[in-house]
Amino acid sequence: MVNNFDIISYIKTRAEKVEEVLNKYFPQIKGLGERVISASRYSIFAGGKRIRPVLCLTGCEIVGGNWEDVLLFAAGIECLHTYSLIHDDLPCMDDDDLRRGKPSCHKAFDEATAILAGDGLQALGFEFFTHPDLVKKVSKARLLKAIYLISKAIGLKGMVGGQMADLLMEGKKGGLKEVKWIHLHKTVRLIQASITSGAILGGGKSKEIKILSTYGKYLGIAFQIVDDLLDVIGDEKKLGKKTFSDIKKQKLTYPAVIGIEKTKKYAKKYIQKSIEVLKPFKDRALPLKALAYYILHRAN
Amino acid sequence: MVNNFDIISYIKTRAEKVEEVLNKYFPQIKGLGERVISASRYSIFAGGKRIRPVLCLTGCEIVGGNWEDVLLFAAGIECLHTYSLIHDDLPCMDDDDLRRGKPSCHKAFDEATAILAGDGLQALGFEFFTHPDLVKKVSKARLLKAIYLISKAIGLKGMVGGQMADLLMEGKKGGLKEVKWIHLHKTVRLIQASITSGAILGGGKSKEIKILSTYGKYLGIAFQIVDDLLDVIGDEKKLGKKTFSDIKKQKLTYPAVIGIEKTKKYAKKYIQKSIEVLKPFKDRALPLKALAYYILHRAN
Repeated sequence: MVNNFDIISYIKTRAEKVEEVLNKYFPQIKGLGERVISASRYSIFAGGKRIRPVLCLTGCEIVGGNWEDVLLFAAGIECLHTYSLIHDDLPCMDDDDLRRGKPSCHKAFDEATAILAGDGLQALGFEFFTHPDLVKKVSKARLLKAIYLISKAIGLKGMVGGQMADLLMEGKKGGLKEVKWIHLHKTVRLIQASITSGAILGGGKSKEIKILSTYGKYLGIAFQIVDDLLDVIGDEKKLGKKTFSDIKKQKLTYPAVIGIEKTKKYAKKYIQKSIEVLKPFKDRALPLKALAYYILHRAN
Repeated sequence: MVNNFDIISYIKTRAEKVEEVLNKYFPQIKGLGERVISASRYSIFAGGKRIRPVLCLTGCEIVGGNWEDVLLFAAGIECLHTYSLIHDDLPCMDDDDLRRGKPSCHKAFDEATAILAGDGLQALGFEFFTHPDLVKKVSKARLLKAIYLISKAIGLKGMVGGQMADLLMEGKKGGLKEVKWIHLHKTVRLIQASITSGAILGGGKSKEIKILSTYGKYLGIAFQIVDDLLDVIGDEKKLGKKTFSDIKKQKLTYPAVIGIEKTKKYAKKYIQKSIEVLKPFKDRALPLKALAYYILHRAN
């Protein structure tokens, strides 16, 4: 706990509001193609931690914006994240049967449905981003900037490119340089864009946005390093997915390249770096510092 | 030819500009994940007809907007359309080996790469929609409205839901009601949204936008009916894909449900309906009328 800041309640309050918005705006199960809506609902309401949307809300709040105004944007980010999990789990990708403690989408439904559910969730993310209920609450110029940032972060030169590289490097020789490239694209870009988009929407000054973007980058790196670690030292029950799955697939990860102990040091190093850049924010940075430690010590 | 209007040149001029914009803005092949960029390029530059982007440009022009201002938007629509083709062709979906006369994306590359290429193209569509070079040329309020329209058209209650229903109804009994539902969602919504978004961006009055939306709906229906017809009476070489593929998969199509002759009548009927709604546009409607006949008589 940082300065007695209760990060668990902080996240819970915000995650619950994201949940409410998802419940309110998510398409109802209806029509000839309702199966794909069921599948999308199955995955989005599977109990995710909602870290990315919370980061977006925090980015908005910290620069003086009203976080409740950007809940639809935050919910849209969660749709995009969930789409990426569904597609990553597919047999031709990471072939994971378990996600968030439940059968993966393609296991609970089937491959075609899972691909379509992911596709639909990506579209839904952008539908939320441009929903009239959001548009009336925020600056249109800022909103367009935020959407542009997110679409690049998840695109061919962002998340999608990272997942491609992750697959291509399975079983291949590679060092820290390659691991860093994969992490940066596969995971970091969206985490970084989540907090940065919040700061843009909240009306942050360019200096503030830059600081939060750098914070988000280091936080994202630490997040993925901890993810790599949890695969080898985590608790399957808490994780809600199988451990040693990266090792079985000969994934290029931090522990695989530099060992567990050095990996732990790297995670701490990036958390420290993320906290250092926050100095200009002084006391305002408290939730972000607490979030950083929360991510370092997370068990799932 | 309608009133000596040269629709072929009309489409060519605009499609070439779309091509230019795609060439200028499409990500370069670079980085550890470059394979997915190659695959996206392979599919987007495979010689598509660019009908949807042309409809968007025409929608803009017809209400008095400058179509060259919205080229990035039109190019984004083509990215979304191409993503849908790549995913539809996958083995677990329609399992088509040939597209636009070339091996489908998953045949030229592999399934994982094809899924990711589609995912990346969807993100790229929205990246184009919010690109600073477009934002500076159009009204931000209109742009957000247009993106919202498109994201719904391709989403769980639009294109994705339609593709789901199309797969679920394979080999099942169904009548015209089901065929219409599938067509409306799988194909019509995006075609309709293409011209409507152009009209919104071009600053059309709500009455004009409504007319063009209705035109787009009927045109889209006719387009898909002709698609169904070409599967049974088309020329494989001109089509660039195998014929009788719907029949083999026992797809629910117009010819399957009401036979070839009645289907031809339906196609003509919807083209007539699309032209009738254009009356208030008088002479301005010429390109749209010509486009309608072009679509009725298309061979690919």
